[in-house]
This record gives sequence, structure tokens and C-alpha cells, in this order.
Amino acid sequence: MAFRYPGGKKYNGSRSHQTSSPSNLFGNRGMTLEQDLNDTNQYYRSTGKAVIHKKPTPVQIVHVDYPKRSAAKITEAYFKQPSTTDYNGIYRGSYIDFEAKETRNKTSFPFGNIHAHQMEHMHDILRHDGIAFLIIRFTLLEQTYLYDASLFLDWYFGQKERKSIPLQDIRENGHYIPLQYSPRINYLDIVDLIYFS
Amino acid sequence: MAFRYPGGKKYNGSRSHQTSSPSNLFGNRGMTLEQDLNDTNQYYRSTGKAVIHKKPTPVQIVHVDYPKRSAAKITEAYFKQPSTTDYNGIYRGSYIDFEAKETRNKTSFPFGNIHAHQMEHMHDILRHDGIAFLIIRFTLLEQTYLYDASLFLDWYFGQKERKSIPLQDIRENGHYIPLQYSPRINYLDIVDLIYFS
Repeated sequence: MAFRYPGGKKYNGSRSHQTSSPSNLFGNRGMTLEQDLNDTNQYYRSTGKAVIHKKPTPVQIVHVDYPKRSAAKITEAYFKQPSTTDYNGIYRGSYIDFEAKETRNKTSFPFGNIHAHQMEHMHDILRHDGIAFLIIRFTLLEQTYLYDASLFLDWYFGQKERKSIPLQDIRENGHYIPLQYSPRINYLDIVDLIYFS
Repeated sequence: MAFRYPGGKKYNGSRSHQTSSPSNLFGNRGMTLEQDLNDTNQYYRSTGKAVIHKKPTPVQIVHVDYPKRSAAKITEAYFKQPSTTDYNGIYRGSYIDFEAKETRNKTSFPFGNIHAHQMEHMHDILRHDGIAFLIIRFTLLEQTYLYDASLFLDWYFGQKERKSIPLQDIRENGHYIPLQYSPRINYLDIVDLIYFS
């Protein structure tokens, strides 16, 4: 099950622990989508608006050392493909579930960003009347959109010509999420609009 | 954030990959609660009854090697305390959330099995009208119970004398989950009884 991230992309989880200098506190300079979402979800939890967490990165642990008088140390482990989306929780009494992805593509969102297991998972959630969507950031365009999972699955399973969703469709049928100070990306406002009105 | 499991308890995640000999296919001999729950949740997903997953073990990754032509290898990492319960998902349109714990104690369930963050998390879920509970296995007694999170939190916050919940109370106010062939621990039958009837 161990795998290499596509294109040799490296794990950037540790970037979420870097300290922010004033120049990257705003304007999407140096802040990843994951950092923005962690800040936003923290804001939602602390204000009692929702309980939504990112799941830990799945890791296959092969070897652990147990030195005396210090913490257990994992000395061999590999990244695993996730079997679900990264984020889930509860909002307004409903189950909510989403995947968040950044792309450097300027014209479309490639299917390759989402694993087969994650597609199946979103399909399952929709069947059980849960709320499921993607949050997609086009990093070079500095634009973030919420895009319903059923639209995504329609593109993926409904045609064979394209291997990506055109940005034009995401603009028309998704919802732009503006960048703010706090919470940074207030995606639950969009969720209210789409799923609760 | 790195920590040592209480009492020097070692990570047993790899035990879920051991092959089962006929002698431990039933009767709680060699099957951990985690294995039983993984089997059960797999059954629920494949039959379309519910979508419930265990979250990955949270790990703080410190160093990763990226050898050419092979998988990225994590060479230094530490276990982190979980900030939520281990299991969540959707059932009958509702958000469902639980923690599963084994104890070798024969008379009570010690609070020390549940971290402070997990208590807060269960409290948050209840406030948002989610379903939250514990599944507790007394391994030496070979008995498994479902125990509502609000009862657990009442014990924890409502008195200061005891540092554990008496088994007697779990028997009276919790619900016994019998061991079966498939699914092994059909806890959603109990959920139907408590939360949907």
C-alpha cells in the first residue's frame, strides 16, 4: 500500500507548523489551503458553529523503537493512500464531508487529484444523504471554489473524453469562496446557501 | 506533542494485519476490538447500511527520505495525542461518532483511557445534536458494551471521588453488544434502539 505521491510531490504537512511572518498572513502568500482550512475549522469549533476536523495523514507503520525514558520513535513508515476524504464533521445537525485540493493548473481541475477510493467515498456519502463537496484552490489564479460532489462525480463517471473539469464549469456551477481575515475561507456560508436554503 | 502511551503500552496497529488461524476466528481469542470494528464497519459499508471509518493514527512526521525510484520513507516520526475520537461517519442520515477502548480492568472503566481532547470533542458533538458514545470491551471478562457519551461525561465532570466508571453502572445504563459471526459486533442494532426508537 505504500506509494509515492504523483509527480514526486513531497509531503508538506510540516509547513503547517511554520511561523507566519507579517508578509504572508494574508493574500495567499505562503499560506496553503490546508493551513487556511485548519484556521477556519478552528474558528468554527471555538465559536460553536460546527465541529469539523482534518483526518490525520494515513501512514503505514513498519518499525517503532521504544527507548527507555523517552517517547516511542517511529523509524520506518510509509504514506498510504487515503480511503476517505480528508475532512468531515457535523454542521447544523448534518453530516458534512469534503476533500480540499490545490492545483497549479490554470484552466481545469484534473481528476488525478482525487483517488478512486475518495470518489467511492463521496458517492457513498451522497447515497446516505450526507453533504459532500470539494474545495478547490487554483493557486496561480488565487481563487478558491466550493464544488458539489455530485457535479464532480457526474463529470468523472458521465463522460470519457475529458480527464479534468474545465475551470469555466467550476466558475458557473461551483461557488467562489472569497479570502477573508477571520475565518480565512468561510465555506459554511456557501454551504448554507447551497444545502440549507 | 510527542508522547508515550500510558503505562508504556505499545502501538498495536500492526496486529490488525496478522493472519487469523481457525482457533481465533471467534470467541475473542486474539481478535482485538479494533479488528472487530474494522470488520464490522467494512460489513456496514459493503451492505450500504452506514459509512463509518476509523481515523488514521495521528503521527507527527519529522523526517522523510525520498529515494529515487522507490516510495518515500518516513524515518523519524512520533505518535501524537488524538484531538478527536477514532471513529465517525454517517448512519440513517445522522452524524455518528465514537471512541472504542479495551480495558483489562474487571470492575470498572478508568477515565485515563480517554484523553481530555476526546472528552471535549464528545461534548461538542452532543451540543451539535450528533450521536456520540463509547464502545468498551472488558477483555478479561470477554464483554463489550455501548455506553452513551453523555453518561460518560456526567461521570467525569459530575463527581470527583472516583477516577473510573463502575462496571455495574455500565451494565445497567449501557448496552451489551453480543459477539456474532458477521458483523462481529453489530453495534448499530443498539444505536437503533437507543437513538432511533
